[in-house]
Amino acid sequence: MSNLFLTIAAIHPLNVAAMSAAEERQGMLTKPPKALGRLETLSIRLAGITGNAFPSMQRKVITVMAGDHGVVVEGVSAFPAEVTPQMVLNFIAGGAAINVLGRHVGARVIVTDVGVASDLSRVEGVRHRNVRMGTANMAQGPAMTRDEAIRAFEVGIETVEEEIANGLDIIATGEMGIGNTTPSSAIIAALTGLPVAEVTGRGTGISDQALLLKCLVIEKALALNKPDVSDPIDVMAKVGGLEIAALAGVMLAAAAHRIPVVMDGFISGAAALTAARLCPLVAEYILPSHVSVEIGHKVVFEELGLTPLFDLGMRLGEGTGAALAMSIIDASAKILREMATFQSAGVSGEMVEPPSTPLS
Amino acid sequence: MSNLFLTIAAIHPLNVAAMSAAEERQGMLTKPPKALGRLETLSIRLAGITGNAFPSMQRKVITVMAGDHGVVVEGVSAFPAEVTPQMVLNFIAGGAAINVLGRHVGARVIVTDVGVASDLSRVEGVRHRNVRMGTANMAQGPAMTRDEAIRAFEVGIETVEEEIANGLDIIATGEMGIGNTTPSSAIIAALTGLPVAEVTGRGTGISDQALLLKCLVIEKALALNKPDVSDPIDVMAKVGGLEIAALAGVMLAAAAHRIPVVMDGFISGAAALTAARLCPLVAEYILPSHVSVEIGHKVVFEELGLTPLFDLGMRLGEGTGAALAMSIIDASAKILREMATFQSAGVSGEMVEPPSTPLS
Repeated sequence: MSNLFLTIAAIHPLNVAAMSAAEERQGMLTKPPKALGRLETLSIRLAGITGNAFPSMQRKVITVMAGDHGVVVEGVSAFPAEVTPQMVLNFIAGGAAINVLGRHVGARVIVTDVGVASDLSRVEGVRHRNVRMGTANMAQGPAMTRDEAIRAFEVGIETVEEEIANGLDIIATGEMGIGNTTPSSAIIAALTGLPVAEVTGRGTGISDQALLLKCLVIEKALALNKPDVSDPIDVMAKVGGLEIAALAGVMLAAAAHRIPVVMDGFISGAAALTAARLCPLVAEYILPSHVSVEIGHKVVFEELGLTPLFDLGMRLGEGTGAALAMSIIDASAKILREMATFQSAGVSGEMVEPPSTPLS
Repeated sequence: MSNLFLTIAAIHPLNVAAMSAAEERQGMLTKPPKALGRLETLSIRLAGITGNAFPSMQRKVITVMAGDHGVVVEGVSAFPAEVTPQMVLNFIAGGAAINVLGRHVGARVIVTDVGVASDLSRVEGVRHRNVRMGTANMAQGPAMTRDEAIRAFEVGIETVEEEIANGLDIIATGEMGIGNTTPSSAIIAALTGLPVAEVTGRGTGISDQALLLKCLVIEKALALNKPDVSDPIDVMAKVGGLEIAALAGVMLAAAAHRIPVVMDGFISGAAALTAARLCPLVAEYILPSHVSVEIGHKVVFEELGLTPLFDLGMRLGEGTGAALAMSIIDASAKILREMATFQSAGVSGEMVEPPSTPLS
């Protein structure tokens, strides 16, 4: 089913019967009604996504998509482009933040080269799916062709399908790509019509001067390439990124296969918004994690109708926020599966009425 | 050292040298400076608490203190008092929410009878430290004597000391006691001087009518018992609870032994505020978890100068919010211990300056 359009066509609404069964079960567990708040609503959402009233989130994958960005020559990032392949090697060696957090939550971390601008073909442990060696500089022309963009979406789709074959209950999105907050801001500005300055932040930590430059570069790219805002693939091709397209593909494929997908930070947010514009139903399969320091991330939550699970002031990407959220989401599923009911535990579940006599 | 006053005297400031070393290490790890937000500041706090620049949070304990409350005869709770011993049995059987979450985060859950109003002396798996079989009705007189309150604090202190002997890196507070939001609100109102209505919520889910009654009961208890607000032990004795005193003892002992202690919800918050009034330094050893739906919890955060890690709309107690936070806190320690440095991973850590020439 890996074709982009077949995948979109395979996305259906949540399973209402499984959600009702999960909600009924929550009411029987040994706790006051709704006392576990979002842990309860998350578990009900998982039931709707999977179609299973007692879903298990045991088999976890964090998919890190790596790509480079021609626009970095404009000076939009605090780190040099060579950091992208260096960090890919760090992921393979297990020394990056996402490796630590992946181990912590019991998730497999898989790393895919969708568009790194260095030759990684001999590096073991990387999934080699390079569509092109980095995008072109979107301030001078389109970042990639439409065919390349579609191919990058499909790398994401195929990743989900391969991981389903390896055993997959829940997947989290992560990325590495020096400069990739710039195309993310461009995508979000294009798809929402908001001013560039309202969706553009400091990325890895640029100065005031560089932030101003970054906004000007994005405005120039949008003016030059004139992406068709009614065509998310055109937006991705002209001002997007290869790893961003791949993550959008991950989200679409997860929805098509009824696998919950956890959205990480700002770049994952740009991918989520793109996926949701291709197929609005996908938003029901996307689970939030943290809200990033990047100002444009809040816009994504509003557009998708999602609320973050937490705000820890993070802005690293890689899937780090999603990894922590995955553990909370797994906990919500375990609550549903493992807690005793009032009946099984012999606990009095009836509510008592307050005395009707006034206080003496 | 288990005496209450010896314990308080043994609480010292954080270890500044360990914090500096941890902060320096964070700056060397393969990520942009401060990009992991509160995961970084948490890890530095753990270094200051433990005195170890590379702290480990492997050995986790959730201590659930159980007690009953004479004030429930006034109709302040949605559930009958018999639920307290029933839930203790549920904890022992492993079917409660805290058991599920304890297993999820790899924590030992220990259950102590500090003041349950039923005879649990033959129940295996419960730590038997019953000081008295429930408090007296504080709307008619003091909840307990000063000696009983001190004994309940010391149950908490001794619990920490016993768990240190069993191996302890981090401890979380939890409780079970039908009616215990009522004394918690009374304690917080007394210690802060705030109006009762501003620190009193619906607990397990009472009606508007019962909430009004609950506020009146608390106001009556405060007017009748006239706790000395400059003496936190007097406040605890007159309008507190046995499990609340024990949790305050847990926090004081954790601080004295340089063990991080994770504060759960509203009842744990009342315990934390009491502990901090006995020894302000204890707040540096208390790590926040979630903010509860109970309105008075926010007051505790303000008084202690803490910020919640997340808000998931929870209001169950038992330690459930603290359990989830414990996993995030453990993750922060692993980041510090396990991540590669720029040097060890061969990643370019220098920031690049933006080009000084204007955009062409």
